[in-house]
Amino acid sequence: MEHYDLIVIGAGPGGYIAAERAGHAGKKVLLIEKDNLGGVCTNWGCIPTKSLLNSSKLYKKALHSEAYGVTAEKVSFSLKKAMAHKQDTIETLRKGIAFLMKSNKVDVIFAEAQVTSPKTVQADGKEFSFDNLFVASGSTAFVPPIPGADLPHVLTNEGILQIEKLPENLVVIGGGVIGVEFASFFSAVGVKVSVVEMMDEIIPLMDGDFSKALRKSLSKVDFHLKAKVTKIDASSVYFEKDGAETALPADTVLMAVGRRPLTLGLETIGVDVAPQGIRVDEQMRTNLPGIFAIGDVNGKSLLAHSASRMGEVAVNTILGQPDRMRYGAVPWAVYTDPEAAGCGLTEAQAQEQGYKVQSASVPMRANGRFLAELGKKEPGMCKVVVDEESGLLLGVHLLGVYSSEIIHSAAGMLEMELRVQDIKEIIFPHPSVSEIIKDALWAL
Amino acid sequence: MEHYDLIVIGAGPGGYIAAERAGHAGKKVLLIEKDNLGGVCTNWGCIPTKSLLNSSKLYKKALHSEAYGVTAEKVSFSLKKAMAHKQDTIETLRKGIAFLMKSNKVDVIFAEAQVTSPKTVQADGKEFSFDNLFVASGSTAFVPPIPGADLPHVLTNEGILQIEKLPENLVVIGGGVIGVEFASFFSAVGVKVSVVEMMDEIIPLMDGDFSKALRKSLSKVDFHLKAKVTKIDASSVYFEKDGAETALPADTVLMAVGRRPLTLGLETIGVDVAPQGIRVDEQMRTNLPGIFAIGDVNGKSLLAHSASRMGEVAVNTILGQPDRMRYGAVPWAVYTDPEAAGCGLTEAQAQEQGYKVQSASVPMRANGRFLAELGKKEPGMCKVVVDEESGLLLGVHLLGVYSSEIIHSAAGMLEMELRVQDIKEIIFPHPSVSEIIKDALWAL
Repeated sequence: MEHYDLIVIGAGPGGYIAAERAGHAGKKVLLIEKDNLGGVCTNWGCIPTKSLLNSSKLYKKALHSEAYGVTAEKVSFSLKKAMAHKQDTIETLRKGIAFLMKSNKVDVIFAEAQVTSPKTVQADGKEFSFDNLFVASGSTAFVPPIPGADLPHVLTNEGILQIEKLPENLVVIGGGVIGVEFASFFSAVGVKVSVVEMMDEIIPLMDGDFSKALRKSLSKVDFHLKAKVTKIDASSVYFEKDGAETALPADTVLMAVGRRPLTLGLETIGVDVAPQGIRVDEQMRTNLPGIFAIGDVNGKSLLAHSASRMGEVAVNTILGQPDRMRYGAVPWAVYTDPEAAGCGLTEAQAQEQGYKVQSASVPMRANGRFLAELGKKEPGMCKVVVDEESGLLLGVHLLGVYSSEIIHSAAGMLEMELRVQDIKEIIFPHPSVSEIIKDALWAL
Repeated sequence: MEHYDLIVIGAGPGGYIAAERAGHAGKKVLLIEKDNLGGVCTNWGCIPTKSLLNSSKLYKKALHSEAYGVTAEKVSFSLKKAMAHKQDTIETLRKGIAFLMKSNKVDVIFAEAQVTSPKTVQADGKEFSFDNLFVASGSTAFVPPIPGADLPHVLTNEGILQIEKLPENLVVIGGGVIGVEFASFFSAVGVKVSVVEMMDEIIPLMDGDFSKALRKSLSKVDFHLKAKVTKIDASSVYFEKDGAETALPADTVLMAVGRRPLTLGLETIGVDVAPQGIRVDEQMRTNLPGIFAIGDVNGKSLLAHSASRMGEVAVNTILGQPDRMRYGAVPWAVYTDPEAAGCGLTEAQAQEQGYKVQSASVPMRANGRFLAELGKKEPGMCKVVVDEESGLLLGVHLLGVYSSEIIHSAAGMLEMELRVQDIKEIIFPHPSVSEIIKDALWAL
């Protein structure tokens, strides 16, 4: 039985980063992946959706740039070509991860892994022992028991990334990040899209002002809030709202109501597994010595970059270097058109937590670069949330172009616990949309 | 004679920000501007060039997005429409500044200002006295005494922003930021562009690896380095290189060899004026009590955002709040296609300053978002410069899409004096090009 210092199950952004770091530190590492390197993020999530959303943004620009001096005729969108580029991007990234594993001397097995005891894992017909095990097995789309949910035209994120022609009528069940990103893409390329959401607003992690503004910005998408899907058949999705039933025509349905951790039956060997995922401490340790759970599988923060950071924390822990997973400065971004992003507390969260909240919102159309590139009508804004007593920054919220590339600075500011005065002394480049953060702080 | 707490000469990004902040703090402020609100930045610099560069980037995308699924026919570029949008952007921003002045109770006079004594200013036929004077009169394009430099087709930044049809052959004299940005714009929309630069590389403020990479990326532009322009006539620009003379055909010439401070003859009232600008201390004070010089006119850092920060420092100083202008974390960005940006020390500067330098460069094509949006062939890279002894970050350098929106975080990191280990613990959103900074730090 071959022995490894570390076995990692799952080659997503939690698992492969952990394997890379541990391999780099000289550990003997085995990475076991049942599908492709990169996990959901690279193959069925972050990367393919961003590739498609970029294509739809290019389509919109080719259609609507006359005001900027650029005209074109017969602008057309090819799903086939967009999908081919998406696939090429995925394959290039997979190769990159394979190269990283090789250069950090990580052994890789493509097989289902089974944890056979608190000290052993089986895969590809062999058994391996370990000092440490990182369970980074991720999550899968949850399909609720709605009548008709098993029909062939009801797809999850994986299925919809493999379609060969555009739907005519797409109904998205679930107004979270995944559902809304696909709604943005498909509506931009001419598909009639409806989103049905049970809650009273889309994307619950967003500051309320922003989720509402984003919803209104996606003006081609038909949103149904506080609406409960009751049934799906071959041609329609039925939902109930305020006691009345409505049927939406649908040749394709995207099920995007949430995700469930893939806990690999670990409770059978004594791992403490809760419904939302494997229970872990701040170092990602489970209740069993040497077994860690990182990424979606612990249910703490279902984001690729959280998984990667958890992987680093777990590696540092087995290397004896003090580290701790912190959730207060995890940025998020939604790559819709317009983009949205945020980090830290929303205004409502800050109030709930008892802060004396000060906040300010400024529109992006007062920003020089935004105005130069998008004119006066496109949506965009920035809100900052501050603790009035200490002057500490608590949250930054963005809607508009470049939001996803700007928000990392807010993660840094929150992680470093900067006060408003500190940030006012940082020099932001002009003209950039990033200046909006400083402008919002001055508007307080 | 009306008295003001503060008189500001020049309504550029130094002057108008200072007037706004001082007005907001309750000071009685007069702002005197000889031309339009916003100064060179809004009217003849940052804003119009970014507006035009955005148009040329849209044109390129409309032409070359087939790989992403977007095709178009008869793609055409209209200088007239691009110029109209540029003008509209300028006018909107001017109105915004006028509104800011009004809401902060700043009086504005449109006239030439003359400083008649260390306590008085004349403008529009009236004389005003002041407690404090901020000279924010900016700079103007330097036109060297080259034979033919006064011909009508030899333009500076102001002239070239008013042309009504595209040149056929444009020669840009000077490979600094201004020259290279215009070269990027005009070459992208089909103009044959040559750049003649005396030094051995373009854009001296850039890390050497980056200026070279940027030059090579602008593959449609014909660069002539170590070349000295000797003469301009109606149809050509002549330069000497390695003893040989060459003539470049030119129906339009852009003179972009540098800028000169507009010091308003202040030496006559006793202000200490050096050739590069008015001498100031860290609080922007000149040698005369109550007289400050901010922005291009002091020659310290010819960037709009430096001017704004200088304005804030000067205002804080007259308000009795301790503050100090620091130049170590001033970001810069070049909005060419591809963009470039940087903050802090280049590798060469760090070595000159005696640091034990550690540096790492990573290509953007290893970045998920970059690959999804730009594919494998577009140029892009990030270099980090670190002090090996302390682990302190010394500089960040970027080439590629989004650089200008990413670099502000580096300004924050440098201002806060973060070490590599601190930055590694910041969570960057995935997928974003901004992650490249973290990847470069891990590559050290």
